[in-house]
Amino acid sequence: VRFIGKNLWSVSTGDRHGMTRLVIVGGSDAGISAALRAREVDPAAQIDLLLTDRWPDYSICGLPYLLSGEVRRTEDLAHRTREDIEAAGITLHLEHRVDTIDARAHRVRARTAIGEREFSYDALVIGTGAMPQRPPIDGLHHDGVHQLHAVGDALELADRLTHPSAHRAVIVGAGYIGLEMADALRLRELDVAVVERLPEVMPTVDPQIGQLVRRTLEGGGVEVLTATAVSRIARDGNGLQVHTDLRTLDAELGLQAGARLGAAGALAVDEQMRTGVPGVWAAGDCVHTHHRLLAEPTYLPLGTTAHKQGRTAGENAVGGSRRFAGVLGTQVVKILDLAVAATGLRDDSALRNGYRPRTEQLVVPDHKRYYPGAVDLTIRLTGDERDGRLLGAQIAGGLSGQVAKRIDTIATALHHRLTVDELNDLDLSYSPPFSAPWDPVQAAAQAWSAAAPAP
Amino acid sequence: VRFIGKNLWSVSTGDRHGMTRLVIVGGSDAGISAALRAREVDPAAQIDLLLTDRWPDYSICGLPYLLSGEVRRTEDLAHRTREDIEAAGITLHLEHRVDTIDARAHRVRARTAIGEREFSYDALVIGTGAMPQRPPIDGLHHDGVHQLHAVGDALELADRLTHPSAHRAVIVGAGYIGLEMADALRLRELDVAVVERLPEVMPTVDPQIGQLVRRTLEGGGVEVLTATAVSRIARDGNGLQVHTDLRTLDAELGLQAGARLGAAGALAVDEQMRTGVPGVWAAGDCVHTHHRLLAEPTYLPLGTTAHKQGRTAGENAVGGSRRFAGVLGTQVVKILDLAVAATGLRDDSALRNGYRPRTEQLVVPDHKRYYPGAVDLTIRLTGDERDGRLLGAQIAGGLSGQVAKRIDTIATALHHRLTVDELNDLDLSYSPPFSAPWDPVQAAAQAWSAAAPAP
Repeated sequence: VRFIGKNLWSVSTGDRHGMTRLVIVGGSDAGISAALRAREVDPAAQIDLLLTDRWPDYSICGLPYLLSGEVRRTEDLAHRTREDIEAAGITLHLEHRVDTIDARAHRVRARTAIGEREFSYDALVIGTGAMPQRPPIDGLHHDGVHQLHAVGDALELADRLTHPSAHRAVIVGAGYIGLEMADALRLRELDVAVVERLPEVMPTVDPQIGQLVRRTLEGGGVEVLTATAVSRIARDGNGLQVHTDLRTLDAELGLQAGARLGAAGALAVDEQMRTGVPGVWAAGDCVHTHHRLLAEPTYLPLGTTAHKQGRTAGENAVGGSRRFAGVLGTQVVKILDLAVAATGLRDDSALRNGYRPRTEQLVVPDHKRYYPGAVDLTIRLTGDERDGRLLGAQIAGGLSGQVAKRIDTIATALHHRLTVDELNDLDLSYSPPFSAPWDPVQAAAQAWSAAAPAP
Repeated sequence: VRFIGKNLWSVSTGDRHGMTRLVIVGGSDAGISAALRAREVDPAAQIDLLLTDRWPDYSICGLPYLLSGEVRRTEDLAHRTREDIEAAGITLHLEHRVDTIDARAHRVRARTAIGEREFSYDALVIGTGAMPQRPPIDGLHHDGVHQLHAVGDALELADRLTHPSAHRAVIVGAGYIGLEMADALRLRELDVAVVERLPEVMPTVDPQIGQLVRRTLEGGGVEVLTATAVSRIARDGNGLQVHTDLRTLDAELGLQAGARLGAAGALAVDEQMRTGVPGVWAAGDCVHTHHRLLAEPTYLPLGTTAHKQGRTAGENAVGGSRRFAGVLGTQVVKILDLAVAATGLRDDSALRNGYRPRTEQLVVPDHKRYYPGAVDLTIRLTGDERDGRLLGAQIAGGLSGQVAKRIDTIATALHHRLTVDELNDLDLSYSPPFSAPWDPVQAAAQAWSAAAPAP
């Protein structure tokens, strides 16, 4: 029986108090989602949520906008206030760092400012997130070198930015967080340089899209150095020197951002987010994830995924059997006046996974050109040459071009294993200010089919 | 074998010249789509396209923006130029009004300025569109009363609008075209009144959304009269008088727009757009359409549908066997600073078709509130209470809220018969300027599930 409402199945608690004692470790997306979902399906559960810092349910994805000054107050970044969470009957334990799980005794131990505390559980959900990689660069310890990870890191950096002499920043890594930071710091009118080890910025999209991003960055006054590894950061007089293998930049402020994590170190979980340890679930950046187009689990730490996995873990921790449907790697990022989104596979990963990918690119206005304000969308569509199966897409375009929600149409189609050609069957919305009779997504599908090599 | 490329199957022509002679009647969305698709899959076919006016492949949906002045030149409304179409090897015959089809002899006869002409065919596609209903109102013949249908109508009206004394317009009918016209004429700074027979504007959405639209109209200076039927239009001195059953309005300009057509008079076709007459296909506003959520064919004349049906007919007319996948009634309309979109069924039609619908409404920002520029989205989600199946949605919100492409995510989900709860499984894109970790569409799904009555 499919679960369709909050009361459509009852929870078996089985402990001697007649209620489930649920302990959740981690107070970010996955942990909070688990807590809220558990409360929704089990009004009686005792829910204790332990987090290491003082910032439950904060939007980590919003940190660049706090640093840009677009968000004024740190509190505004909270998805929900502490009061909202507690009003749902979830007990928050701030500054509780869990260091021991005794899975046999069903107990966790946390260090706090006033000593150690123990919590017993019937069910445990681990949502501790991930630690960013420290890249092998000498000098990361210098004052002025920042790594952007938790809310506290952002506050330290914000403090640095308001220092009157901060006028130049070097960002190491041109992944999406690094580029969001470039956008943010330009808005604060700092001189910004981005250094990327790989040949093009934004390695999560094809170089053709990466070039658009680079032009947008350069047009916005960001200095871009690709194929350039940072080897050493040194303090020199009153500033920092960033040494690369190509040249040396003066810098007052080095930001460490955008580093990708490998699958190593992530917890393995099944589709129900079970760790295999009885009574222990895990979710979010600390776990592997199932990808709907790949045979093997992968590692893709994203807030959307953390929410879904957390919700699944929370429901199951109080008796449910929900399955996490898996990801497609759907992402969107704003970089100055450009929106860049992607979902599914690109040629390289598709090839490695047994597909025979072909990618075609189409540049098309987001809506009928005759209506004012049209912006170009660059759409790259990837399909399998053998059976026409849709494998993925990348879209870059102006902020008004509904890029984010157009990639969602493709993500929904990928979810259902559509062929490229079947995109043309979808009844998508149109009027001249918003689209064309064939939505750009469908125009790209037709371009892909039309470019098919003769058999 | 699925069709995935232009050359993956060959066409059997079977006539004595070795090529298919395809005649298409109608030069708007359906007819042109059929012609272009036929050319794409059969490079050898002889394609003759006959149209009554001089405007092949014009975006009828763009007429309001021509009248508003946002589009400067009529030519800009062409999806493709006449030269583009002819360069594809399609022979255009302007001002050819077909009045006879001899299906036995495979011949059509057209009236032209210089007499009658006959065309033989192997395959015939009919895409003649529909005639708007003339409502039972006395005085529609008066000068100053306009009906908006073809390009020529719009040009006549445009001519009227540039007349120096035109400063007041009454629009009869508050359907989406009527409301687009209200928007357009306000932009020209005319005084505008909209008269609607039904209790609320925009009868294609629920009154809760209709009220939002009405407030937007009134906020923009449009006078709105609902539950008001127009009975008579009279000429009085130098203006027109519009008589309604509630009160009389002075008006210089009456616009007839937004009237809906019943299913009566539409041609019946199967999924391959065959009429049942050998060698004759039909598509666009002149035919019935299959709705994926309804057991019986319905009538829903929209440009998107005409393109898809035309493409299907064109492919099949030169030997294919493509099936039109059916519609969901997906629509979007811009009304001043509001975007309103809908897809699928509402309670009334769902009930009539054997579903047990329940609709919930959620108001939610389009993206994280902390990032500047968030606009409210009002989302009404309809599902079946018995099995949780998604049935439809309506979204209204600010123009920057990606309303059009959010309805497309739901349309794609409807296409695949998802449950409301399964919307939560979709890997949709997020970053704070564009969405939330649970996209508003998913937040609405969760609100729908949470409001489920206790079993």
